[in-house]
Amino acid sequence: MTHSDIASILEGLRRSPLNAPVRLAVMVILVYRGEIEFNELQKILGVKPGLLWSHIEKLHRDGLVVYKRRFTARGPRLTIRATSKGVMETLGYIRLLRSLLSTAPERAADAMIVEQREDDKLGQAPG
Amino acid sequence: MTHSDIASILEGLRRSPLNAPVRLAVMVILVYRGEIEFNELQKILGVKPGLLWSHIEKLHRDGLVVYKRRFTARGPRLTIRATSKGVMETLGYIRLLRSLLSTAPERAADAMIVEQREDDKLGQAPG
Repeated sequence: MTHSDIASILEGLRRSPLNAPVRLAVMVILVYRGEIEFNELQKILGVKPGLLWSHIEKLHRDGLVVYKRRFTARGPRLTIRATSKGVMETLGYIRLLRSLLSTAPERAADAMIVEQREDDKLGQAPG
Repeated sequence: MTHSDIASILEGLRRSPLNAPVRLAVMVILVYRGEIEFNELQKILGVKPGLLWSHIEKLHRDGLVVYKRRFTARGPRLTIRATSKGVMETLGYIRLLRSLLSTAPERAADAMIVEQREDDKLGQAPG
């Protein structure tokens, strides 16, 4: 992997609306599940409704999800679904992440040994 | 994967100092390379020096990297290295990301078919 590869992967990750863990998790679940109700999504993710809603709105503004309200015997329900653009964006983001992660070793044994030996020699602040 | 699994993965991702693409890229490179000079890291990542420096400072405050200045014939050089804590945090973050991504299908063929058929029926705003 060349320098320009890593730079372009990083630019793709930074520019994506999915560069926040909650939005990435929402889109991964939507791509997997097709559609989901807000209440269930909130339970799965374990985040506060207001926080989740702000992320859903951001995804909606960027054209990655659509939602609709339904009225049921148990009250109103909000159903969320990924758009074609959202599915493509999510798969593209996952591809970029996997490319970035592929540059890291599975185990850090060598890195750890070098690093622990050298730690004390490095200052904690710039000179 | 159960609901509580996804919630705990997401909490781990959100709490980590690596939940920003630039910081994740920096740490992946440091774990792979051991140590690196600021100038080279900046060229690899293709981001502005000021932005990179603000992320390095954040990683340093969180104890994930150390750095030292050296004076060379070609001027001062700043060398950055991951700490043990930084290596562990990075490997843990990668593990969480891979767990989250493992819930998504490799191909979105089925999701796309359902979604394209249904797109027009969904409103673009809540009712």
